[in-house]
Amino acid sequence: MPANNGYKVIGTRPIRHDGVDKVTGRAIYGADTQLAGLLYGQVLRSPHAHARIKSIDTSKAVALPGVKAVLTGTDLPDAGDQIVDLGEGPARLKYLRDNVLATDKALYSGHPVAAVAATSVHVAEEALDLIEVEYEELEAVLDVREAMQEGAPQLHDDMTTQEFGEDTGRKSNLATHFEHRLGDADKAFAEADVVVEREFQTATVHQGYIEPHNATASWNADGQLTVWTSTQGSFTARAQVGAVLDMPISKIKVVPQEIGGGFGGKIPIYLEPVAALLSKASGQPVKMIMTRPAVFESTGPTPGSYIKIKMGADNSGKIVAADAYIAFESGAYPGGLVGAAAMCVFSCYDIPDGRIDCYDVVVNKPRSFAYRAPGSTQVAFATEHVVDLLAAQLGMEPLEIRLKNNATTGTRRIDGVVYPKMGCKEVLEAIRDSEHYQSSAPAGPNGGRGISVGYWFNVGLKSSCTASVNADGTVSLVEGSTDIGGTRTSVAMQFAETLGLQAEDVKPQVADTDSIGHTDVTGGSRVTYATGWAAYKAALDVQDQLCERAAQLWEVEAGQVEFDDGVFRSGDNELTFKELAGRLEETGGPVIGRATVDPDSGVGGSFAANIADVEVDPETGKVDILRFTVIQDAGRAIHPAYVEGQMQGGSVQGIGWALNEEYFYSGDGHLDNSSFLDYRIPTSLDLPMIETIIVEVPNPGHPYGVRGVGEANIAPPPAAIAAAIEDAVGVRPQELPMKPDRIVAALQAHEERAAQAAGG
Amino acid sequence: MPANNGYKVIGTRPIRHDGVDKVTGRAIYGADTQLAGLLYGQVLRSPHAHARIKSIDTSKAVALPGVKAVLTGTDLPDAGDQIVDLGEGPARLKYLRDNVLATDKALYSGHPVAAVAATSVHVAEEALDLIEVEYEELEAVLDVREAMQEGAPQLHDDMTTQEFGEDTGRKSNLATHFEHRLGDADKAFAEADVVVEREFQTATVHQGYIEPHNATASWNADGQLTVWTSTQGSFTARAQVGAVLDMPISKIKVVPQEIGGGFGGKIPIYLEPVAALLSKASGQPVKMIMTRPAVFESTGPTPGSYIKIKMGADNSGKIVAADAYIAFESGAYPGGLVGAAAMCVFSCYDIPDGRIDCYDVVVNKPRSFAYRAPGSTQVAFATEHVVDLLAAQLGMEPLEIRLKNNATTGTRRIDGVVYPKMGCKEVLEAIRDSEHYQSSAPAGPNGGRGISVGYWFNVGLKSSCTASVNADGTVSLVEGSTDIGGTRTSVAMQFAETLGLQAEDVKPQVADTDSIGHTDVTGGSRVTYATGWAAYKAALDVQDQLCERAAQLWEVEAGQVEFDDGVFRSGDNELTFKELAGRLEETGGPVIGRATVDPDSGVGGSFAANIADVEVDPETGKVDILRFTVIQDAGRAIHPAYVEGQMQGGSVQGIGWALNEEYFYSGDGHLDNSSFLDYRIPTSLDLPMIETIIVEVPNPGHPYGVRGVGEANIAPPPAAIAAAIEDAVGVRPQELPMKPDRIVAALQAHEERAAQAAGG
Repeated sequence: MPANNGYKVIGTRPIRHDGVDKVTGRAIYGADTQLAGLLYGQVLRSPHAHARIKSIDTSKAVALPGVKAVLTGTDLPDAGDQIVDLGEGPARLKYLRDNVLATDKALYSGHPVAAVAATSVHVAEEALDLIEVEYEELEAVLDVREAMQEGAPQLHDDMTTQEFGEDTGRKSNLATHFEHRLGDADKAFAEADVVVEREFQTATVHQGYIEPHNATASWNADGQLTVWTSTQGSFTARAQVGAVLDMPISKIKVVPQEIGGGFGGKIPIYLEPVAALLSKASGQPVKMIMTRPAVFESTGPTPGSYIKIKMGADNSGKIVAADAYIAFESGAYPGGLVGAAAMCVFSCYDIPDGRIDCYDVVVNKPRSFAYRAPGSTQVAFATEHVVDLLAAQLGMEPLEIRLKNNATTGTRRIDGVVYPKMGCKEVLEAIRDSEHYQSSAPAGPNGGRGISVGYWFNVGLKSSCTASVNADGTVSLVEGSTDIGGTRTSVAMQFAETLGLQAEDVKPQVADTDSIGHTDVTGGSRVTYATGWAAYKAALDVQDQLCERAAQLWEVEAGQVEFDDGVFRSGDNELTFKELAGRLEETGGPVIGRATVDPDSGVGGSFAANIADVEVDPETGKVDILRFTVIQDAGRAIHPAYVEGQMQGGSVQGIGWALNEEYFYSGDGHLDNSSFLDYRIPTSLDLPMIETIIVEVPNPGHPYGVRGVGEANIAPPPAAIAAAIEDAVGVRPQELPMKPDRIVAALQAHEERAAQAAGG
Repeated sequence: MPANNGYKVIGTRPIRHDGVDKVTGRAIYGADTQLAGLLYGQVLRSPHAHARIKSIDTSKAVALPGVKAVLTGTDLPDAGDQIVDLGEGPARLKYLRDNVLATDKALYSGHPVAAVAATSVHVAEEALDLIEVEYEELEAVLDVREAMQEGAPQLHDDMTTQEFGEDTGRKSNLATHFEHRLGDADKAFAEADVVVEREFQTATVHQGYIEPHNATASWNADGQLTVWTSTQGSFTARAQVGAVLDMPISKIKVVPQEIGGGFGGKIPIYLEPVAALLSKASGQPVKMIMTRPAVFESTGPTPGSYIKIKMGADNSGKIVAADAYIAFESGAYPGGLVGAAAMCVFSCYDIPDGRIDCYDVVVNKPRSFAYRAPGSTQVAFATEHVVDLLAAQLGMEPLEIRLKNNATTGTRRIDGVVYPKMGCKEVLEAIRDSEHYQSSAPAGPNGGRGISVGYWFNVGLKSSCTASVNADGTVSLVEGSTDIGGTRTSVAMQFAETLGLQAEDVKPQVADTDSIGHTDVTGGSRVTYATGWAAYKAALDVQDQLCERAAQLWEVEAGQVEFDDGVFRSGDNELTFKELAGRLEETGGPVIGRATVDPDSGVGGSFAANIADVEVDPETGKVDILRFTVIQDAGRAIHPAYVEGQMQGGSVQGIGWALNEEYFYSGDGHLDNSSFLDYRIPTSLDLPMIETIIVEVPNPGHPYGVRGVGEANIAPPPAAIAAAIEDAVGVRPQELPMKPDRIVAALQAHEERAAQAAGG
């Protein structure tokens, strides 16, 4: 078998189809949308974190020359208040609507309260200043634990806690409380030889995509709406816009533009319905682009969290019990990301008895949303710390305890999921076998090394592809998955592999919602997996039809034609794919393949691990990453360079969470660092080259063994860096980010404890 | 059976899907294309009808600030000189290229010789003035018979006559000479009781579409070319651009914009390769829009012609022999439209013996091209005159001789084609039965009535469709056929009929060349026929898949599910299409249907007839149309309003040919009437409401009986009007247009003959 598992295209590194357009500035992003008669929209946002909107007077704005339309929340159609699932989990329609434009209350600083369309951006901005909003300021609550306290300011007048699936009728900021149980955790803890418990906090962190949210809408006279937007899911955007505007989806066409980063944050809609209604009111198309502060203040960052982890082991090092308390800030509206956290908190370990207790809590921050393996990074930071403490108490190496307890095929998670074939062990073994791990840890008094492991379950969902064979033997491939990470290429490669073509022979295109079958969001690391599968099936559909064409030419039955390695054969007859493509005209005309998938099983989760070497400056508390390796199970790496890119990107974001990134709110709930100057994401100057090791444990639930690789890699870095910091200077922060002042404070406390111990 | 042949959608008149966008100005036409960094291109055109290009100095233009690129013909890649067929019949590649930008010679006034891209249209125009072209003027030849004469100026130094399929090696402007024969025409003429022979001329006439030709091109750094253009065939445009630029088709994406009229004239490319090379040279996208004079001077009008018709009949009125000599001006390059004329010249009649002698001749006019039933109007004008003369000599009514000789099922045309089921007789009977025909002819000394019949064979060719089922029970239908006459709706209606949906439930979209399978040009009245068939097949593909989904839900075999009248049934189970569409998510995800067709038989030709009432002012020669009826066999009228629209539109264009339209050249070959002020097309003020009678003789070669209806209707009007003029004032012009001065001259000659006869 050839080196590359017998594949000719899979595992190679062709240039991405959209690469040249992107590096030469030709790719058309949302903000590049141009239409005749275009107006420009702007949004007025609440300066208060929590306030009742008593009145809005737009008359002066309406009167400003150049202003074509002004909207407030009451202009949104009242489409009732049912629970809807629009591709982002169930939610109350009223909440979706109120997040687009507030009606009764502003729930976070930056909450949209009105919008304007005008002949220029500047006129629109001027008009915003003329809108008079009378607010009744209310006390804000910004922390998950404070929000759960009796007597805390209540965000939603009518929200009652759902507990274990039942409505308690109790008004609270606690939206949902649920738990998972496996076995008898109390008994197992009682029998454990060692038990460790710690509590943790993580900050609100933004995805930090370069491209701000945008939407251009044209509401035509027959009620047909076209929306151009940078979105992770054009069909999901269509569904959301339809729900918020109370329109049937067939009246809406969403044209996805190129996207300058999403990481989960470009699944929900914000500007789309506003631009649509401004277009309807003005009779002209309207373009809206968020400012950077608006992106930070009002789009969906990851939830801040409070987490308590308790784990027990026996003296052999076997982890026997685990208990998690996870409280997530869902921001202004209930979110549900804590559910994903519950699926990840103990997911790397085979633990017989445990309990996971989850709290979804509203606070006066923007509605939180998916950010790359949402919820997993928070809980990995906590769990990995406790596992290291167990190891220390048992006198084991961190890698040793992990290899003794790693989840594997057949492991039943505490939330009940039983694993198919999984690569956790192989990922941990790759740590062990790596040059990095086997090399010496950083020298000097303040250098240290840590390891960690993390998980993301990945998703399947629905995808569609069509493929048209060109006479020159190339194929035009149409898919509905917006491409945020090179998936046009990874999907095209699977199509090419199936038909014995080169990657360059397949020309992939992401189509609008009128031009391809329903395709779910680009999220959950699903596109290379599910849309790749659809491409594989579409290729088989093409193959079947080409067999019939060859049979016609050779005057044999279609069943007598075989296809192998790019060649159609029957007896002595042979035609390559390209040759046969050139003869479609004489055999009945063009050939189109089509396929849809909705994998309900077979999705293979992915594990990622890190080895982090750091140096800590004890004077300033600054942590430098000296060397950083990420290891991940790709199942099958379709395009290794993009797998590596995902691993590196996720690692860098995880490092940002670890050391720098956080929403910094003033006491009254105003976001003080809503720019990239003040909100610090790691730059290339802050980082070494991230080293990558791809592990391939093929997923038996996919024709080419693919697992998604986009997300698991963000989970382990904070834990690995925390372990490395501890290894370096003896303190391990339990709060993210581990910023310099926290390190300094921890070192001072450590010294004081040491002094007390020495003194005592 | 219901009134509507049992159909629920076919035969109804829903609002066209693209209608509101078009009447509200929202539809995006070629000129509306907007891109960042767009440059504007202009073309320098030859002022001479025939000239050798000795040199072109572009240096001053290049130096003008704002000019980004300048091209001449030598900048086009030399892709050799093979014969290519790019969807518009075989042609020499050199001719295609030279028509885009002249190299050695300018062959018509308006021939492109250079092009400029600049930051504004005005700078580009200024730059054109700075290009210095040294011409050696040559004598021009503008008339088909003069061009065939010995010693006529030779347009192409290397062109030799192809005669009866052989290269004669004889240099000439006669590109091709061929003939069709059936039986023994000489013998039949010798035995005929009456024989009539006349000669005819027709003018060069332009399609007169409102929207000028346009192209916007973006040549990206990786050699991928995107072209936005108003075209009748995006795939044909792609093939032509690829051939002229020597590029594989897979490197080119053609995005068809809405089209403001084509009528055959927007099949060939003109600006597309020029815009592409200007974009390549400048590194920016380039938009080009023709001026109106450029459209007239340099795009493809219908060929002017010289035609001689001889027909013989026996005393019973049976036409026994026919002979045609047809010489067509193909303009600057060989065209081949005379071949279509040969298929139409005697196509309405069943004639046992005959001969058709055809000449394709180059002259110093723009390359002629398809114009609605190309070639048929010219020959119908001639043949119908001779048939009327036979009738007069035999003492028969014009309708009587036609009903005695009409072509029918099994008729073998002189070119060998044998008719399937055809509606010629039914169309003629519809004349007889019409209220118009049965009403009195116009009163007064100068009123008259004429009838005529015409034909177009229609074509099939390749079409592709895909269809995606939305959860709300609507369907997104993707097709490759650009829509010049309401075909989005007529295709969508066939899809809807097949699945028991409403027309409004189907949302049709014309996709770019990367998003749908190969689809041939919108021409030959083929789209409602062939693309409609593809939609029908795609609907069946959806139906099959939905039967499987219903079977899943009901836990039966797919074969046990029946579909009828919009409802899936098995035993007591029932689900409507919409209900089942809402349950796709639980049964395997989305459903896409796909189909391609390439009908090689079954295309049903269409006959059209007219009744024309006119009044002639003998003083001025002006002819007023008092009443005008068009009758046409639609096979099955999918959307009767659009069928009527086609019939009315074709009639009006035929009336334009009859009375007003012609290219008016000065002696040196300069076009003197290259604007809509001077080139007179009929306006609503010139015309009565055109009355329509749809005849339906279902085409057995189509699932819904469709025949194309876009073209046959332009053929009969000049002949019917000529007959009516004769009926009114006793003279019948044999040259088109029958403009006032010709009528006056004919009346004077008629009076002189009458005076001579009286005097003699």
